[in-house]
Amino acid sequence: MDVKHLSSFQGFSLEKLQKHAVFQSGRFLLDVYCLAAGQSQKPHRHTSSDKVYVVLEGRCRFRVGTEEETHGPGASVFAPAGAEHGVANDGPEPARLLVLMTPPPEHV
Amino acid sequence: MDVKHLSSFQGFSLEKLQKHAVFQSGRFLLDVYCLAAGQSQKPHRHTSSDKVYVVLEGRCRFRVGTEEETHGPGASVFAPAGAEHGVANDGPEPARLLVLMTPPPEHV
Repeated sequence: MDVKHLSSFQGFSLEKLQKHAVFQSGRFLLDVYCLAAGQSQKPHRHTSSDKVYVVLEGRCRFRVGTEEETHGPGASVFAPAGAEHGVANDGPEPARLLVLMTPPPEHV
Repeated sequence: MDVKHLSSFQGFSLEKLQKHAVFQSGRFLLDVYCLAAGQSQKPHRHTSSDKVYVVLEGRCRFRVGTEEETHGPGASVFAPAGAEHGVANDGPEPARLLVLMTPPPEHV
């Protein structure tokens, strides 16, 4: 059985946000993002892939379209295909996110 | 911004497993399943949809193909398209699962 424990994806880097693959198929990518305080993913968009962020630990500031909101553990944020979206950890705590993208983007 | 808090999906029924929609699009379904002790979803398969279960609370016995394993919070279980899969809460605690299906099945 293909089982992964989300607590095992803990790799942070001082250099930049780290993405760890949990599962992937031709239909989706499921990753854990580890963002040290001050790290971010610049706003970008995917024409034909939906993204969902779920906060596992810490707090992050999410941008979807022109809106920005900061959320903590248990919050799930939907960035539909075509919407500009990004995420930033303003600190002080490290943050871990479960991130779904479906289908996988043409350029990961 | 379309934000949902996973802690807000807590509806259990004595009658059967409850499914609560978190987000859905033409590309995926993301649900929270609430299983009281003794409740289950019978093994079934989807020809062309992948499913991922993430245990939020409690412990469940997962079946994928011919394998059965019991897992607790943080465990993520991949049931690829075509694989028979099901889940049961043998108790004694209630269980909550985050469940991804992508793409949505033809018959939900």
